[in-house]
Amino acid sequence: MANQGLRNMSVADSNTGLVNGAEGKLIYVGYKIEDLAANALFEEVVYLLWNGRLPNKAELEAIRADIATNAILPAPVLEFLNTLPKDANGMAVLRTVTSLLSIYDPEGEIQTLDAVKRKAVRLVGQITTACAAWIRKSKGQDVIAPRTDLNLAANFVYMITGAVEQVAVDAINVYLVLLAEHGMNASTFTSRVVTATNADIHSAIVAAIGALKGPSHGGANSEAMRMFLEVGEVANAATWFDENIKSGKRRIMGIGHAIYKALDPRASILKEKARALAQSTGNSKWFDIAESLDNLARADQYFIERNLYANVDYYSAIVLYTLDIDVDMFTPLFAMSRIAGWSAHVIEQMQNNRLIRPDMNYTGPMDLAWTPVDAR
Amino acid sequence: MANQGLRNMSVADSNTGLVNGAEGKLIYVGYKIEDLAANALFEEVVYLLWNGRLPNKAELEAIRADIATNAILPAPVLEFLNTLPKDANGMAVLRTVTSLLSIYDPEGEIQTLDAVKRKAVRLVGQITTACAAWIRKSKGQDVIAPRTDLNLAANFVYMITGAVEQVAVDAINVYLVLLAEHGMNASTFTSRVVTATNADIHSAIVAAIGALKGPSHGGANSEAMRMFLEVGEVANAATWFDENIKSGKRRIMGIGHAIYKALDPRASILKEKARALAQSTGNSKWFDIAESLDNLARADQYFIERNLYANVDYYSAIVLYTLDIDVDMFTPLFAMSRIAGWSAHVIEQMQNNRLIRPDMNYTGPMDLAWTPVDAR
Repeated sequence: MANQGLRNMSVADSNTGLVNGAEGKLIYVGYKIEDLAANALFEEVVYLLWNGRLPNKAELEAIRADIATNAILPAPVLEFLNTLPKDANGMAVLRTVTSLLSIYDPEGEIQTLDAVKRKAVRLVGQITTACAAWIRKSKGQDVIAPRTDLNLAANFVYMITGAVEQVAVDAINVYLVLLAEHGMNASTFTSRVVTATNADIHSAIVAAIGALKGPSHGGANSEAMRMFLEVGEVANAATWFDENIKSGKRRIMGIGHAIYKALDPRASILKEKARALAQSTGNSKWFDIAESLDNLARADQYFIERNLYANVDYYSAIVLYTLDIDVDMFTPLFAMSRIAGWSAHVIEQMQNNRLIRPDMNYTGPMDLAWTPVDAR
Repeated sequence: MANQGLRNMSVADSNTGLVNGAEGKLIYVGYKIEDLAANALFEEVVYLLWNGRLPNKAELEAIRADIATNAILPAPVLEFLNTLPKDANGMAVLRTVTSLLSIYDPEGEIQTLDAVKRKAVRLVGQITTACAAWIRKSKGQDVIAPRTDLNLAANFVYMITGAVEQVAVDAINVYLVLLAEHGMNASTFTSRVVTATNADIHSAIVAAIGALKGPSHGGANSEAMRMFLEVGEVANAATWFDENIKSGKRRIMGIGHAIYKALDPRASILKEKARALAQSTGNSKWFDIAESLDNLARADQYFIERNLYANVDYYSAIVLYTLDIDVDMFTPLFAMSRIAGWSAHVIEQMQNNRLIRPDMNYTGPMDLAWTPVDAR
């Protein structure tokens, strides 16, 4: 029988992240996700994932500056964004732009380990700039170029708003830290399968963006927000839950996870972040809807028996929406963070590579004789 | 221990193709590759892979016409090709264009089974047109639009040369038939991993193109030709083989295969096709070099002991080069054929879907305490 989902099948040794789904724990290179979310800059996490240890002060400033100075988009890529329809899907845009970036990368087709590390630096910066540029272009606004003096979260907030508001920067930074790495998820695995053919890192990251786009993976954050928008008011939550979820008509988006059978530790942190943002902005409507649905699920026998808890997508949707990010851009922002983990896995795969070439169970007919088309 | 290459691990039930690596046999939906290469139009193979049976005359004409009338590139995509540097890598161009096509596809973000089947028809035609368009644009020539009255192989030859030369059409058709499907190879597996997240078919095909690009997968046909060009003359073959291959300095490109431990049946057919083309064009130089290196490998103990035979990439390089296709475009032409198999697997995966989410063996540190950056 085919092992269709490859669940629990170890496909690589890796020093990156450990997901303990049974206990609801997540570590990056030995550090608890709670410690990282409370203390780390996103660039610190990028360094940690790429180098296997935290940077000292000089190393942190070096990687920050390296990413920031390489975050600018080549002119033809910016020009290309101008040609796109404003309602183009955000992930389709990011997938296309990332693919195009390889053509203008000075080392696009050079796949030595050193070149890949430099390309990864450029991709982290350029994907951030591409997300910010598309957020503005899709609204008909002029693009704001990245600054070389800011860290990535601050630069992103600056590029979408023209200002560096600290509350937003902190929220984006925590979001980026939390989503940077998550073991052998579908998009990370995709990046490894592509890298294993010795294809270039842009091919691997483009492929990973395609996998992340699916609603059963990164696409779930947008889907969760669309669900909250559909509920509309906290007063509707109980009726909506009964009619759509308890009835078995639909699945609730952002609750349940392939690996976590306990609370996703990222969800707890994001829930508190979402609550704080709701309080500080005075707009708690969406947080209240999300928490209300979450509580309804937590009290429901179906969810209790199956250990279905809110996952990272659920409360991250509220954080991003409260920061005024378009729902269509939620998944591109997930990619903006996960590029850290993807590139760490690409670099690891290159250093201990073997073609990933599984088999399948052929269930079709055998030994058919050819018949010419006129005789069919 | 991690199962790194997933070799012999069955990841799906499939009615598409059966690769018998031990005996050197390949079938598509019950039909021997030898019968298909001798008799089938590429469109017949596409129909076979998508529908599980050969089309009758009306069905064959319907799919031919459907592909041909949908093969035209949207104006903004053609315009985009004009903006690219002429020396851009052919696979990077095809990956980007295929990603961009989703933005202009009338059902780009609609992922019902019926919509996916229609998008697959468009992709088969548009990828062919994109390859032909880039072959001409990269040489500074005007693009030739597809005709609605031709089959795909004839249309491709027409779009690159402006004429329908039957010898070239037959060779391209055989090439397309032979490379259309090959079980759970790395790019096909990639398309399934992406589809399993419920991402759209363009994301799956773009990801597969990225995997195919690798020199350890589809990229090997260009690498084989570069090797023949380096040898330069048949008189150099023995010395070149001794100095580069027998010495252990380099690996020979296009000989050896992850699955075949016998002669790749596609290689036998392509070898005879390459020989016939060499004779009919009066230019046998590259065929002679390839055959000579092949014979040297076949007589060598290292290759005999390890069952290393010429694979599909080896003689297909000679076929394409004799047809005056640029070496950089060999792998895009592989994609132009394999889109048939990829889309068949996407459609199959959709009908019996489960998220492909393996695990990994975490080998990094545990339980590290956070240290502030100033204390490191």
